[in-house]
Amino acid sequence: MSDEAVKYLLDDSEMPTHWYNVVADLPTPPPPPLHPGTHQPVGPDDLSGLFPPELIAQEVTAERFVEIPRAVREVYRLWRPSPLFRARRLEAKLATPARIYYKYEGVSPAGSHKTNTSVPQAYYNSINGITRLTTETGAGQWGTALAFACSLFGMHCDVWQVGASFDSKPARRTLMETFGATVFRSPTRDTESGRAFPEGHPGSLGIAISEAVEVAAQQDDVKYALGSVLNHVLLHQTVIGEEALLQLAKAGESGADLVIGCAGGGSNLAGLTFPFVREKLAGKQNPRLIAVEPAACPTLTRGEYRYDFGDTAGLTPLMKMYTLGHDFVPSAIHAGGLRYHGMAPLVSHLVHEGHIAAVALHQNECFAAAIEFARTEGIVPAPESSHAIALARQEALACAESGEDKVIVVGLSGHGMLELGAYESYLAGGLADEALSEEALTAALAGVPQL
Amino acid sequence: MSDEAVKYLLDDSEMPTHWYNVVADLPTPPPPPLHPGTHQPVGPDDLSGLFPPELIAQEVTAERFVEIPRAVREVYRLWRPSPLFRARRLEAKLATPARIYYKYEGVSPAGSHKTNTSVPQAYYNSINGITRLTTETGAGQWGTALAFACSLFGMHCDVWQVGASFDSKPARRTLMETFGATVFRSPTRDTESGRAFPEGHPGSLGIAISEAVEVAAQQDDVKYALGSVLNHVLLHQTVIGEEALLQLAKAGESGADLVIGCAGGGSNLAGLTFPFVREKLAGKQNPRLIAVEPAACPTLTRGEYRYDFGDTAGLTPLMKMYTLGHDFVPSAIHAGGLRYHGMAPLVSHLVHEGHIAAVALHQNECFAAAIEFARTEGIVPAPESSHAIALARQEALACAESGEDKVIVVGLSGHGMLELGAYESYLAGGLADEALSEEALTAALAGVPQL
Repeated sequence: MSDEAVKYLLDDSEMPTHWYNVVADLPTPPPPPLHPGTHQPVGPDDLSGLFPPELIAQEVTAERFVEIPRAVREVYRLWRPSPLFRARRLEAKLATPARIYYKYEGVSPAGSHKTNTSVPQAYYNSINGITRLTTETGAGQWGTALAFACSLFGMHCDVWQVGASFDSKPARRTLMETFGATVFRSPTRDTESGRAFPEGHPGSLGIAISEAVEVAAQQDDVKYALGSVLNHVLLHQTVIGEEALLQLAKAGESGADLVIGCAGGGSNLAGLTFPFVREKLAGKQNPRLIAVEPAACPTLTRGEYRYDFGDTAGLTPLMKMYTLGHDFVPSAIHAGGLRYHGMAPLVSHLVHEGHIAAVALHQNECFAAAIEFARTEGIVPAPESSHAIALARQEALACAESGEDKVIVVGLSGHGMLELGAYESYLAGGLADEALSEEALTAALAGVPQL
Repeated sequence: MSDEAVKYLLDDSEMPTHWYNVVADLPTPPPPPLHPGTHQPVGPDDLSGLFPPELIAQEVTAERFVEIPRAVREVYRLWRPSPLFRARRLEAKLATPARIYYKYEGVSPAGSHKTNTSVPQAYYNSINGITRLTTETGAGQWGTALAFACSLFGMHCDVWQVGASFDSKPARRTLMETFGATVFRSPTRDTESGRAFPEGHPGSLGIAISEAVEVAAQQDDVKYALGSVLNHVLLHQTVIGEEALLQLAKAGESGADLVIGCAGGGSNLAGLTFPFVREKLAGKQNPRLIAVEPAACPTLTRGEYRYDFGDTAGLTPLMKMYTLGHDFVPSAIHAGGLRYHGMAPLVSHLVHEGHIAAVALHQNECFAAAIEFARTEGIVPAPESSHAIALARQEALACAESGEDKVIVVGLSGHGMLELGAYESYLAGGLADEALSEEALTAALAGVPQL
């Protein structure tokens, strides 16, 4: 162990002041979302029932950089910059010449990257007189993040939590309530979308989205907030990659060879990688960018690139994306945040165009890597983040074979302090760990609209 | 909200290189610990079965400063410096002219200050050929911290967890196991100390200490590690206060008016306040230093300053300290880390000599303050830490009345991510919240040896 630094931060004066919009630099624009009824491109008016004007503008902007409002930057400073760590102990354990850096978003109030977008979303809604936000949550990270953000801006927050998660993770519900939110077990009996399912149904992210959207659409001073998938959400997350670029430079690196993030809805991956896409397109560095997803929900690696709904009930616009079918219910893997049938259209577009690669891993390998990481670096990763760590481990071991001293940047999107039940199951003898079957995949894709 | 900084860190070059030994500056030396059999002052030989020579030397050193070994500083850098935050949002909420700073130890691998001492303890044992450390844990913070430290230095870690905590907090056990430890429910059937209690007994910290000490004393390559109370533990924690002094200066403050920490065994309080004691004795600043304890376990405010055992079975040396009696079992308040019958002899001495004041608070007030803190500052405090926050809140509101712009420094010793069950109970309608009765106190003190 050398006496060199392991943690890189940024001074207040160095903090990013703008989010980065990758669309401005793409040779081909991403296909537009379509209205679920008319199948025509969605315009700003179609979204005004759900989102405030600033977020709608960000959803379609062609500007390269969007200024982060001062009120948002002031909140960001509670946990930003998130630290970039050099994983020297893990490197030593793996006996690799690779230099592994991890960008750690678990320092945020919600314990994950989600507050990077919940705070601006709450802010823009608050300055438009909105008094209440509705949303869904699966693993609970997003619901926690929005609950916190609403508490700062004096708004109420209603969260529809996927039933299975609500039942098995009381601590997540308590955390949302501690931040002031009201939490419902989805599906509820209170919405049309919820009543379509039998009482006690375990729910899904798609169903919970339908419920939250349905409620928000009914009242003028209530809006909806989404934690991933949409362009404006991905935009807000780019603060991760912007910081990482500055921190890598502080660490004396001229660039990254590999940038690895887990991908569920795609916002964590986008936030980390999009600024690297810019550097790559500008010829400044040439990293391989890799999305890691679970073998049980292999949207990018085995889904189809088609127009599909973001939710189960078909209330959202149709989006061109990699999808497993909007009524697909993935098996109950522990990385709840990666159990989504689709993928952000912008991430899908970049994968389709070859800018970002994708790999699927089994959860047992991910937990094994996560435990090794905890015992060397001291951070217990969220099950989602463990997917990125497991791939970084593979790549670092390949470097040990080849002798290459690659610079590997890993997105550590959150901590696992509220997911220790998953670790308990893993330590007790491994987890069910099946890949999606061909039959289930074919059946799930049969429900995707023919456009 | 102004545009000023909210978070203060330190550059690598500014990091403390030494721990501070307050004994060197005290006008009166603290009374020595006594051998439990002979009642004579304990010498180094009496401790050599339990601790390695470096820690025994630190236990009795008269040096003002003790260098932090390079190997320890390298591990510290995973989470140190811990941030000093200015609580601007809380100040605004309380409409106080006071400036509230909190020193946040929850960024550590264990989620609390405990790793500040677990790492050097594991290090010194490892360089002495020790292969296994035993310890006890109540709330689980200390067991987690030692499990992590042992994993770094290639030692095994055996943790006796207080039965009630073991039963109600499986996540804590899993976290210790994730870091590689073996966890026993105390009292066990495997030790003489444990067999003195009936099967299924809820246990206590005192019993768990007896079990861990008993096992360590039987084998040469096994030693014991204690998470609080002893001089060397308090010494290691002074890195907190040393950093806080530097960070306050960076924030432009010439000193603190109030320094507030919760106190269970006393190491968190000591770590934060002892460097301020030095500044005070040197006439450089004049802060009031305050220990906050639970009304259900009011060691400093209602205990007696006498020689007593540190554990239930009477295996430890007799220490002059504030005590409620070594067989006192406090009621099941949620701040498990504050449920200790005694108090560090050095803290006791400083309280007795008037350098540090003490206040006892009820847990409902503490949880209410903690929730307000979470909703403004984004951090859910450990139930222990909430005691310091609640007193800071009282003081800040007093400043709002008086118009004084006091500088209040609060020790936020850890986060509450693994204690959300306590928040759930509080949010569901308040907690049992009784102060220790006069009868129970008299009965508990009757067991203290007459010396």
